[in-house]
Amino acid sequence: MLNTQLRLARRPSGEAKSTDFSVTREAVPSPENGQVTVRAEYISIDPSVRTHLNAGQSYRAMVGIGDIVDVPVAGEVVASAHPGFISGDKVTGMLGTQEYAVVDGATLTKVDVSLAPLPSWLGGLGLTGLTAYFGFEEVGKPKPGETVVVTAASGAVGSVAGQIARIKGARAVGICGSDEKCRWLTEDLGFDAAVNYRSPDLYRDLKEATPNRVDVVFDNVGGPLLDTLFRRLGMRGRVIICGATSQYNEGEIYGPKNYLALATLRARMEGFIIFDYVDRYDAARREMAGWMKQGLLGFRENIVEGTVTDYPTVLHRLYQGENVGKMVMRVVPSKP
Amino acid sequence: MLNTQLRLARRPSGEAKSTDFSVTREAVPSPENGQVTVRAEYISIDPSVRTHLNAGQSYRAMVGIGDIVDVPVAGEVVASAHPGFISGDKVTGMLGTQEYAVVDGATLTKVDVSLAPLPSWLGGLGLTGLTAYFGFEEVGKPKPGETVVVTAASGAVGSVAGQIARIKGARAVGICGSDEKCRWLTEDLGFDAAVNYRSPDLYRDLKEATPNRVDVVFDNVGGPLLDTLFRRLGMRGRVIICGATSQYNEGEIYGPKNYLALATLRARMEGFIIFDYVDRYDAARREMAGWMKQGLLGFRENIVEGTVTDYPTVLHRLYQGENVGKMVMRVVPSKP
Repeated sequence: MLNTQLRLARRPSGEAKSTDFSVTREAVPSPENGQVTVRAEYISIDPSVRTHLNAGQSYRAMVGIGDIVDVPVAGEVVASAHPGFISGDKVTGMLGTQEYAVVDGATLTKVDVSLAPLPSWLGGLGLTGLTAYFGFEEVGKPKPGETVVVTAASGAVGSVAGQIARIKGARAVGICGSDEKCRWLTEDLGFDAAVNYRSPDLYRDLKEATPNRVDVVFDNVGGPLLDTLFRRLGMRGRVIICGATSQYNEGEIYGPKNYLALATLRARMEGFIIFDYVDRYDAARREMAGWMKQGLLGFRENIVEGTVTDYPTVLHRLYQGENVGKMVMRVVPSKP
Repeated sequence: MLNTQLRLARRPSGEAKSTDFSVTREAVPSPENGQVTVRAEYISIDPSVRTHLNAGQSYRAMVGIGDIVDVPVAGEVVASAHPGFISGDKVTGMLGTQEYAVVDGATLTKVDVSLAPLPSWLGGLGLTGLTAYFGFEEVGKPKPGETVVVTAASGAVGSVAGQIARIKGARAVGICGSDEKCRWLTEDLGFDAAVNYRSPDLYRDLKEATPNRVDVVFDNVGGPLLDTLFRRLGMRGRVIICGATSQYNEGEIYGPKNYLALATLRARMEGFIIFDYVDRYDAARREMAGWMKQGLLGFRENIVEGTVTDYPTVLHRLYQGENVGKMVMRVVPSKP
């Protein structure tokens, strides 16, 4: 059994390109005591991966030169030397850009595909959905009647975040990049309003969508859009820093020039890392599954087929702004 | 009795100049029922005043064209139609750039000059000192053993903030603009370390002064210095946004490019306005007076003489970076 693997060959400058990676093919070893062999079915496509390809330090180890790219994967157990798993089990884990992974069973999450299909366990019930969940639970804490604005609202995290804001009783306003996406947010996902950031008068549109100003910003985008949001922030507003997709491929980060509004408004800007809440993932997933059953929460995956070596090409499509919902790559076998 | 008044004549571009103001002279009216007439002895010189000279909105009303500039003043009651005040009482209040003010007695604070001399009631026991106090009490909340970095540490707010950080059991590190100021911080005020921001290797010096990284930043300066501090911030760090003196005279504000460290570090950046704590001013002053008696807290005023019409010239000196401690202008009578 041959395992095709995509490895980082050099630090990308700007967007990661296929030429920044190399491909290796190795025999899949048998699992040792406690280990499990998983065949990748879906690879999570996340904008944040770009930050881990840089040198330096972040909230987790950087991908080393010559290393497999450390990304979430959903797949099937094909061999197990761990008492908790048998062949055929569906699991998720940080298995990386490869067709097969042999890992410690303790690092895997067994998933219940009767509750939601496998790709949802990389999306709404995966780290993406948990990011939206804990961003509100731990940092933003929206209260009933407050106004929440979510950026990249049609994306994986944003589309879940807006729905959770509604569940919490807040007014949910989404910002995204096309009128069609805006319609999806308001008509299918139940957002109260949506704003196209390509509008010729973004601030006017935002103002119209947030008549009582903004209490919580769930920011995935950064850049000048964040500055526009600062202009609309209300007293004691909370800006959740989840990501900055607009900046990941830039050489220099755009700093929010309107940050002094924090003082004027007695407001705060705060970050979080979901890995701090690992102990609470199961409880969070149970609560989210309950919302799904009540029809309050729905997920959409944008499934793209590819071999593991297509990963950089698929990631590129995510940055093109055409994606809606959670993007995952269904892994098809590489040609030898 | 003639009252010389300095009024805003036009919105300044860049730093405020004398030509942005006009001078009026009016007879001082008698106080009506409930009013008090105060003769200005000291006018507070604050960098933040510059932001109130702009059009637009802030945490308090902007100074209108033709208006007296709304600044804190300490002075003596010369006539009273309010039962709480008699001639000779020393008071502080937002009395503006004028020699005499006739105001509602309820807006004045009577001060006890046996506790501290009158200028200290504009400095350490005035809004400046209270700003340091509430910034820590409400936002930064330094814990014993944590490291606190204060910017503009030799200034009015910063010099008090560093001392309060020490009183709270934290390591206090000050950043200021000369080696002489650094010595004042460590030798006279008891800061644990001080760093000159003009150093050829500021980051190295900062790192040496903060071996356990930085838990709380009390930022009065903004600009690239804030970005340097983000590089040294520790896990769950708190950045108190008090002001941005480096930016007040700039056309465009410098946005902190390293703000994404907030996510990596699970950190937050938060602003506050002391006017929210008016009800607690007296209790805070009592606690600070207690610290003074124990020799834990000392104030220094930089007293400059001038007529009210000299106010813009004195303010200019504050921005030159030569000031140490709280700058106040002792008001000498204008020549008619």
